[in-house]
Amino acid sequence: MKNLSLYFSAALLAICFIFSGCQNSQTPQSVEQNGEQQELNLEDTKMIKQLFDEALTSRETYSLLDHLCNNIGHRLSGSAGAAKAVEWTEQVMNEYGFDKVYKQDVMVPNWKRGEKEVARIVGSSSGELTVLALGMSVATPAEGLTAEVVEVQSLEDVESLGEENIKGKIVFYNRATDQRHIRTGAAYGGAVDQRSAGPSTAAKYGAVGVVIRSVGTAFDDVPHTGVTSYQDSIPKIPAAALGYQSADRLTEALKQNPNTRLFLKMTCQTLEDAPSHNVIGELTGSEFPDEIITIGGHLDSWDVGHGAHDDGAGCMQSIQVLRLFKKLDIKPKRTIRAVMFMNEENGTRGGLKYAELAEKNNENHLIALESDAGAFSPRGFGVTAEDATIEKFRSWLPHFDRNTITFIKKGGGGVDINPLRNTLGTPTIGFNPDSQRMFDLHHSPNDVFSTVHPREIELGTASIAGLIYMIDKYGL
Amino acid sequence: MKNLSLYFSAALLAICFIFSGCQNSQTPQSVEQNGEQQELNLEDTKMIKQLFDEALTSRETYSLLDHLCNNIGHRLSGSAGAAKAVEWTEQVMNEYGFDKVYKQDVMVPNWKRGEKEVARIVGSSSGELTVLALGMSVATPAEGLTAEVVEVQSLEDVESLGEENIKGKIVFYNRATDQRHIRTGAAYGGAVDQRSAGPSTAAKYGAVGVVIRSVGTAFDDVPHTGVTSYQDSIPKIPAAALGYQSADRLTEALKQNPNTRLFLKMTCQTLEDAPSHNVIGELTGSEFPDEIITIGGHLDSWDVGHGAHDDGAGCMQSIQVLRLFKKLDIKPKRTIRAVMFMNEENGTRGGLKYAELAEKNNENHLIALESDAGAFSPRGFGVTAEDATIEKFRSWLPHFDRNTITFIKKGGGGVDINPLRNTLGTPTIGFNPDSQRMFDLHHSPNDVFSTVHPREIELGTASIAGLIYMIDKYGL
Repeated sequence: MKNLSLYFSAALLAICFIFSGCQNSQTPQSVEQNGEQQELNLEDTKMIKQLFDEALTSRETYSLLDHLCNNIGHRLSGSAGAAKAVEWTEQVMNEYGFDKVYKQDVMVPNWKRGEKEVARIVGSSSGELTVLALGMSVATPAEGLTAEVVEVQSLEDVESLGEENIKGKIVFYNRATDQRHIRTGAAYGGAVDQRSAGPSTAAKYGAVGVVIRSVGTAFDDVPHTGVTSYQDSIPKIPAAALGYQSADRLTEALKQNPNTRLFLKMTCQTLEDAPSHNVIGELTGSEFPDEIITIGGHLDSWDVGHGAHDDGAGCMQSIQVLRLFKKLDIKPKRTIRAVMFMNEENGTRGGLKYAELAEKNNENHLIALESDAGAFSPRGFGVTAEDATIEKFRSWLPHFDRNTITFIKKGGGGVDINPLRNTLGTPTIGFNPDSQRMFDLHHSPNDVFSTVHPREIELGTASIAGLIYMIDKYGL
Repeated sequence: MKNLSLYFSAALLAICFIFSGCQNSQTPQSVEQNGEQQELNLEDTKMIKQLFDEALTSRETYSLLDHLCNNIGHRLSGSAGAAKAVEWTEQVMNEYGFDKVYKQDVMVPNWKRGEKEVARIVGSSSGELTVLALGMSVATPAEGLTAEVVEVQSLEDVESLGEENIKGKIVFYNRATDQRHIRTGAAYGGAVDQRSAGPSTAAKYGAVGVVIRSVGTAFDDVPHTGVTSYQDSIPKIPAAALGYQSADRLTEALKQNPNTRLFLKMTCQTLEDAPSHNVIGELTGSEFPDEIITIGGHLDSWDVGHGAHDDGAGCMQSIQVLRLFKKLDIKPKRTIRAVMFMNEENGTRGGLKYAELAEKNNENHLIALESDAGAFSPRGFGVTAEDATIEKFRSWLPHFDRNTITFIKKGGGGVDINPLRNTLGTPTIGFNPDSQRMFDLHHSPNDVFSTVHPREIELGTASIAGLIYMIDKYGL
């Protein structure tokens, strides 16, 4: 009997504990901001909560992404997948009944990976390495390429080694991402120069090829692709990314034998530019129809996996923000656009075209937001705007549950919307979800729908909708 | 040529964008708090950053959890797994060279699930349902139990229906968790009364069994167990949880035929209480050795999956906080204890014993912290303490990166440390990681090591270590 009453007490304790944790909605009537009590409009808190409720219960961002990933798949610029995604997103936005749905023509690079790449340590029974050509890479000779390997940690190492140590060799850039960065975007940013500038830097000294340790945060053997940028005046050499464990094996082989040779075979090619499109849906502003707020993601992806987090998620979230406004009968004062940008991954042609047309058409862009950092739980926004605007946005933080948006940091944007800032001076916002899992998947075959959590992506949608709702209502 | 320079520009833009996102470390020299400029000790910021660096690069929390999950496995009180986990954690803490490592004896309930449970809609070809007995449930008769089913949404429904509609039937509690809660603990808390109190409530009116829709947040078909609490004066009836989709199938069957019967077979039994232990490791305080700071998790788990998030993670994090202090040569002023509590899931005997001994031994407990909400990215802490203490903790928030700990909320603790608060008035802290994925896995076969992210669990370890470092240094 004693035992049973103890169980019951324990259960009650557990339930009390759980309920004590339930008070996670912040709906203060006045909040302290800059040392002053500031009145919050509770109607805004309520509306933002409704945006979250609708997103979490409808799960339509998640459903759309399911279709994009599992029925269309990856969408490299110029591919059949990209064309299907253009057609489908136009159809989806038409079916939602947005006020305007249209496309912008844009010519895009048309790079093809070709046959499955081969990378093999010559003469080793366990020498087969996992590999993906870097985006825009040239092919090896048809019979493949065999050369000795010189391992370096940085572009500077190559400069130091010079032609005498580099010429005729394959340069192996092996610097891993620094796991000490809390935001994994910073870890990625600290290593990606090897991918973007490594091939031309190596070619300058006569290298015949480049392999890199994949720029990612997982310790698995899945390679991560991503664009490389050849400099015009330097010969283009084939370049590829190795899986993390494959890079370890190559390092080990070089320790055993500094004359280790690598066989590399890739059949990539760059065809003529192909026609493609940005896809745009609009809700027309009721008071200031000429003031435009852009919300975007990029519709293209790499040609492996599903491009689920990068960046199917951002596109579906952008569409859903407009859908949520319609559903909750929010009539925006300004014109709100959901933009599916084409070709972020290997050219930014869509972003450049969007800015070019904005300028040509004398459009008035109030602000632009991009979601291109994954479908994970929201944490904050980065904002490039005047200080007063950033302070104003910060004053809105108490409308958001503490488990969603907790910061507005200075500095932020997106690859596709930055041209708008550069051309018209438009302020920009980047959505910052939790970053811990993003670079495990990013640009790899693992960026698939099954890694997306339905609640996390919807919290992102609602967070963006909440901020846009406030900007539309109160301006910058 | 134009194309190439555009690619290069795009890559540069991308890199600029990435680097603009790198400034995610907050190391202000003075911060605004309550409208006053407050000086932050940058040495503290630096030390906390070192705790994060060490956790993220060593990944020892993750490695320990790997062993606990994959070499020991689940650990229900009284099981061989629980005994092995006691022995192993004692060994681990001894090998780390903590100042004291010891056990507390505690008798624990000894419930056995028995053979794989069966739940089947009688006469339906697709009638096999996924099912797990609730913890502490009694068995059905050996040949199983067949009865008509009455579906309800709440305990109140049962009270309203009364004996005439309940007697002789299996009550099916079918209220799903409310997905609108942003913190999933609140969704869970709003539905779990069906599991804890549902069986006795139904038995009061003559029900012969209970099934519930699993209290979880995923829409899959994996059932979630968890303790039920029989009231002493009421007959004990067998009780089980159905997978979400199985619950849907039963609902559908009842719509088609209100006289649908369910067959249920379970062979659970509760044996005599078994001897077990709390396991404790200590770093002895250099200035105030009699002031104790407890950091804990619970070592027992349900008898399905690995108990990875619930709560292997919290135990391994507690051990690692002490390991990080030793590694960084932090000599705590107070005595810091890592406590592996036994029997949180079905009795709280370990937590009760710990409080009982603390009182008996006249121990001076400054504060206690529990990590029992999963190994996910940190978001904040809930604190039950005087307002001044909560304000003091809030003043430390700027030491933490904005992608880790962003709030100190009022109210928090843990099932195992709440008895200490109840007995001695000890203030308590609950660690709040991101909650979105927790109740997809909680108490189910899916709570396995592969769902734990190495960086997320280490960020949790370092967040806890950072707060404990500050409390040890500055007091409450």
